[in-house]
Amino acid sequence: MLRSQLFTKTIKEISSEEQSTNAQLLTRGGFIDKVMAGVYSYLPLGLRVLRKIEQIIREEMNAIGGQEILMPALQPKENWQTTGRWDGFDALYKVKSHSDQEFALGPTHEEIVVPLTKKIIDSYRDLPLYLYQIQTKFRDEPRAKSGILRGREFAMKDLYSFHADEADMDRYYEIAKEAYLKIFKRLELDVLVTEASGGTFSKYSHEFQALCEAGEDTVFYCQCGWAQNKEIAEAKEGDKCSKCAEKIKTGKAIEVGNIFKLKTKYSDPFNLAFKDQDGKDRPVLMGCYGMGSSRIMGALAEINHDDKGIIWPKEVAPFEAVIIAINSKDAEKNQTILKESQKLYQTLQKQKVEVLYDDRQDVTSGEKFMEADLWGIPWRVVISEKTLKEDAAEIKKRGTEKMELSKLDQVAAQIK
Amino acid sequence: MLRSQLFTKTIKEISSEEQSTNAQLLTRGGFIDKVMAGVYSYLPLGLRVLRKIEQIIREEMNAIGGQEILMPALQPKENWQTTGRWDGFDALYKVKSHSDQEFALGPTHEEIVVPLTKKIIDSYRDLPLYLYQIQTKFRDEPRAKSGILRGREFAMKDLYSFHADEADMDRYYEIAKEAYLKIFKRLELDVLVTEASGGTFSKYSHEFQALCEAGEDTVFYCQCGWAQNKEIAEAKEGDKCSKCAEKIKTGKAIEVGNIFKLKTKYSDPFNLAFKDQDGKDRPVLMGCYGMGSSRIMGALAEINHDDKGIIWPKEVAPFEAVIIAINSKDAEKNQTILKESQKLYQTLQKQKVEVLYDDRQDVTSGEKFMEADLWGIPWRVVISEKTLKEDAAEIKKRGTEKMELSKLDQVAAQIK
Repeated sequence: MLRSQLFTKTIKEISSEEQSTNAQLLTRGGFIDKVMAGVYSYLPLGLRVLRKIEQIIREEMNAIGGQEILMPALQPKENWQTTGRWDGFDALYKVKSHSDQEFALGPTHEEIVVPLTKKIIDSYRDLPLYLYQIQTKFRDEPRAKSGILRGREFAMKDLYSFHADEADMDRYYEIAKEAYLKIFKRLELDVLVTEASGGTFSKYSHEFQALCEAGEDTVFYCQCGWAQNKEIAEAKEGDKCSKCAEKIKTGKAIEVGNIFKLKTKYSDPFNLAFKDQDGKDRPVLMGCYGMGSSRIMGALAEINHDDKGIIWPKEVAPFEAVIIAINSKDAEKNQTILKESQKLYQTLQKQKVEVLYDDRQDVTSGEKFMEADLWGIPWRVVISEKTLKEDAAEIKKRGTEKMELSKLDQVAAQIK
Repeated sequence: MLRSQLFTKTIKEISSEEQSTNAQLLTRGGFIDKVMAGVYSYLPLGLRVLRKIEQIIREEMNAIGGQEILMPALQPKENWQTTGRWDGFDALYKVKSHSDQEFALGPTHEEIVVPLTKKIIDSYRDLPLYLYQIQTKFRDEPRAKSGILRGREFAMKDLYSFHADEADMDRYYEIAKEAYLKIFKRLELDVLVTEASGGTFSKYSHEFQALCEAGEDTVFYCQCGWAQNKEIAEAKEGDKCSKCAEKIKTGKAIEVGNIFKLKTKYSDPFNLAFKDQDGKDRPVLMGCYGMGSSRIMGALAEINHDDKGIIWPKEVAPFEAVIIAINSKDAEKNQTILKESQKLYQTLQKQKVEVLYDDRQDVTSGEKFMEADLWGIPWRVVISEKTLKEDAAEIKKRGTEKMELSKLDQVAAQIK
């Protein structure tokens, strides 16, 4: 894409009410725009990042048999009364129509997915079944001060699994856990698989916690991989780990995913059952697997940045590379620089590199460098009079200081 | 995809309250599931169709310089008061938080996009600007009985354009109109470009109307291309067309798009202005261009079907082709049939044909044929003992009766 055609402006001053680091960086870079507390618009750059995060999640959900569906935000009051959550779910937004019909504004979708599968699941032959959605959810958060880490309107993936027995539910739970780890690996986000409360139905659930001072959770963890949420922790800082005898550490963390064995928590109230091989009715067992896509975007900004801006992981950066042409005062030389930059831009596009070409003539090189750093584009490719003498461009990876010359026809190979 | 792994069930009986043809067909085929009046879930097949429609729209919006953003559904009351629509917009859902803060649940996004661009547009250099969104919207429709033609929760694209003067707005309006026609051509949906009320600010707006008995609008039109909405029509049925002297016809139609010259209708209340070349503040002029993606899906089902089911246009069908293997009672021959079907399935996938392979062994061929017709998959590819004698498959296009043999290595070329 040409920079001159991109709708965005980097902002120098942020309103003082925006306290969180992720919101400050993302707003300054023109990724998001605050509409009100906990509610943001995603601008072209930000939407690119969000969609890439969601695409990674989608691919890994498909890989474990997940099928994508889309469920509504407007949800019948009766469904929420059936589960006892119409009055029991604190953060539920309620909507009243002109004809005084009341709806829940979906903060989660168990109340929709269970009645849906009830229409489809008849027998053991229909199980197991894995459905997921990636969509907007709503929660009436009393304090929404953490940028896109905790929104009133936010994007989330939920996978729901349906099983004939506990063994099958347990089997798939481990598969989903592995898929989560794959996703976080692609996102270059280190997470602790943290034991947390399992509610009434299970001993534990698991949270995927990314250590970060801005996190709202406190976890205890050990280098061996053991981790527990403070709420259920059976050990404290400095204790000996029961698994490896090392000392236990503690830290703040952002919960970027959580997985639950729901068992029959939601199938019971809706009577979601199937006929087993003997023709006997038995309740369907469920698992649910949540992952906050907009929260992950916030966590990545919060964790991966320096004083110049965000450092996006390769797979989610809005662009993989930015080409910056250093203007020359010599008109003829300037023409050559622009011509070579344009040529490299086309070459990289042909080689499927997502590249931004900063083609603006009325902006200083310094400003272009600052913006490339602020936006966290993994590769900066500079073309100047000097580099062209070597038939090369100067390439630099965001977050490192090392600059090197790369022959023009080698740039694509070097940054891939 | 393998049919055995697809989450869906074709439904034989539809609840009698579902009166509209589109909802009946889409529900029977397992594309959508009704949650309540005007609110549907999209199942895997239906979501594939919806996303393909949206991708066509996206590509054509990008082609005319549109940049995609995502705006929130939760919108500040003050913004709606600024435009006078908090009390003036009949179908507005209102949400109240626990702390008694009130929000609009976005039925449209002028109240968000104008304050957003106000932060970005400073001077004439920032214009023109074209932003669009494809997302869920909400309207408190008193009667929602038309399936996904008129939902309380629905998916829509809105493009907003921003201009320095009326000539530029007019120029882009025509470009957007052409882009709309391209989209409808790709969707194989015949539309009448229909003059309609322009509101206070313009003489006309334009609606894209697809003739259909289930439509809520009435249009008068002529074979020469002239068309007007009943609300503003200056001629009636049987009159002579003022353009070509042919007789004017009338018909019911579904409005699948509408484009408006807003001029300063929304820039005025928000004081959206720019500095012109003389440094003088001038109001920004706007156009808006709506297109209902879920309504288009409904219109396609409503218009393109026969007694067997839906006939999807090529570009939006959930799959381009379905392979059906006719089982043989001879075990060895059956193995060969399955082997060749599997081989063709892989070949078509390699050739980028989106293909469904109905691999089920416990279902009759008749049922497989019925389902392929109901789902409206453009190409049916049948492999049987008989066709394999010719080293071929029998291919048939949905909506036609002609069946022909195609050599196995020619199938991809023939259906592309």
